[in-house]
Amino acid sequence: MTNTYKNVYIKDTFTIGGLYESEGPLASYIDKLYKKDLYMGEKSFEKAEIKLLTEAISKLIKKTNISNDSIDVIISGDLQNQIAASDYAMRNFDIPFLGIFNACSISSEGMIIASNFIEGKMAKNCIVATSSHNLVSEKQFRNPTEYGAPKPKTATFTSTGSASIMLTNEKTNIKIESSTIGRVIDMGIKDVNNMGAIMAPAAADTIYRHLQNLNRNPLYYDLILTGDLGLYGKDILIKYMKKQYKMDISKNYNDCGVMLYDREKQPVFAGGSGPVCSALVNFAYIYKKMLNKEIKRVLIVPTGAIFSPTMVFQKETVPAISHAIGLEVVE
Amino acid sequence: MTNTYKNVYIKDTFTIGGLYESEGPLASYIDKLYKKDLYMGEKSFEKAEIKLLTEAISKLIKKTNISNDSIDVIISGDLQNQIAASDYAMRNFDIPFLGIFNACSISSEGMIIASNFIEGKMAKNCIVATSSHNLVSEKQFRNPTEYGAPKPKTATFTSTGSASIMLTNEKTNIKIESSTIGRVIDMGIKDVNNMGAIMAPAAADTIYRHLQNLNRNPLYYDLILTGDLGLYGKDILIKYMKKQYKMDISKNYNDCGVMLYDREKQPVFAGGSGPVCSALVNFAYIYKKMLNKEIKRVLIVPTGAIFSPTMVFQKETVPAISHAIGLEVVE
Repeated sequence: MTNTYKNVYIKDTFTIGGLYESEGPLASYIDKLYKKDLYMGEKSFEKAEIKLLTEAISKLIKKTNISNDSIDVIISGDLQNQIAASDYAMRNFDIPFLGIFNACSISSEGMIIASNFIEGKMAKNCIVATSSHNLVSEKQFRNPTEYGAPKPKTATFTSTGSASIMLTNEKTNIKIESSTIGRVIDMGIKDVNNMGAIMAPAAADTIYRHLQNLNRNPLYYDLILTGDLGLYGKDILIKYMKKQYKMDISKNYNDCGVMLYDREKQPVFAGGSGPVCSALVNFAYIYKKMLNKEIKRVLIVPTGAIFSPTMVFQKETVPAISHAIGLEVVE
Repeated sequence: MTNTYKNVYIKDTFTIGGLYESEGPLASYIDKLYKKDLYMGEKSFEKAEIKLLTEAISKLIKKTNISNDSIDVIISGDLQNQIAASDYAMRNFDIPFLGIFNACSISSEGMIIASNFIEGKMAKNCIVATSSHNLVSEKQFRNPTEYGAPKPKTATFTSTGSASIMLTNEKTNIKIESSTIGRVIDMGIKDVNNMGAIMAPAAADTIYRHLQNLNRNPLYYDLILTGDLGLYGKDILIKYMKKQYKMDISKNYNDCGVMLYDREKQPVFAGGSGPVCSALVNFAYIYKKMLNKEIKRVLIVPTGAIFSPTMVFQKETVPAISHAIGLEVVE
């Protein structure tokens, strides 16, 4: 499902990073950094994530100076079971809520729903938000970090932080120009420490369909930016696009998981992951580069491995999905 | 966020029930029943639920005779962590997918997203689907049934089954007329065996806002039908609406959790729950009653307790949400 838009704009964004994000190369673009520890003053990591998400939404509302009554809906999701960070953060807002889950592609999933609501004149102002927390994810999806389980170089590092964006029908300098909703792709991989390989074919499928449906070639965009494939997944995507679709994306392609950290100095293995990884890069760095007109057309393609520990324990493979959103500077 | 629609119709539905649903008073309205056991021929309950959900979608597609290429998107969610039943069911369909989660209000959440897409001319045909499985939920949210933990009479019984609905812009005999997206309401209750009390205020808030925003009184509808409050929650809602909003809904109100089973004969405590409980009642029984014009205007209000075991272990209360959809027979 590919749509184009004429009336959907970015009002503003708000981004928050944690300890590792504050030591990465994009730190100066992030609105607020928690540099002390991963508790953020809360008693548990789960509650820390709720605090981060609540703050990203409330600070965005304050920054945009739009009243609660004028915000039609908040669309949010996260990696906690039952998207608990979103559910509990939303207790703090007297605003309608839609909960979503497509793992690390949550931010583009939400932006597509919001863009369709706005373009179709069903809503005027929608907030999309997401978060992740490294130690919540380690505990829930892998092992408690205290076990000290070793990881292969293909593993990625769940980012800590929260990010929100307000989409609106009022004209601003950056518009949402197009979107493609992705399909579930499962290449039969069971290695949960190689999410980049699991997600690359889903990203490829979505990028290819987006470009085909809009009759564009990859160079239409200044930048194509996948979610969190990491170093090895990024390489797989370039090769897979070339082999499967005869499409060369190597000239204008990068991956948020590779960009958010300094892999030489930080212990992040193949790069960052988690829904906030791509949301931090897109809503902080890319958004500001676009405001300065340094980048004019970007296709962001957050990628999600819809990984269920229960299903993997039952010998199942890991499916993936990816949704694309095209952002353009209004000339 | 309340919307009205002029161009959104129900194309068809498909519903599947399990053992207990096949012994309930609405069994004859359900399209397919698995009467043997709760495994449905699969090796685990989780895989049984994936099978149920896959079948509800594939049978609906077959019944409507619409090609995959003409289905814009499937919107689905369920109670498994990471909405795994939906993720894995969607591997079987080469159709775009949006994953959603608002616990037992998933079906109305999905119908609102789909209705907004169709009314806004962003999509033509959307499938909304959900499922739940009693023993998956018992294991994940409570105790393995083998423990034989006793339950109080206010507990509800998670329904087993799957249900799907296709919404379309082509005129049919039943239209989606209006919707209201709900807000997260938390009344400070921690008793996870009294979800009816937890959810009733969320249902009340959504029903009240829906009627207020559309300038209607409760009797505009032939029937107002909450999701799965159960016997005690139903009673709380009637009293709460009267006290809080001076609104009497007692004349035309019922609850899907009370309707799906025979509480006198079946071991369901206060009634049914799980996202498929209200979806089975609405997509099977209500849909067929509307096709026969026995009921002409219904406000369905699926209710979700966004219950996270992790948060409750951390001494948190349980928030709730509810989304309303108005269905009307086309005269």
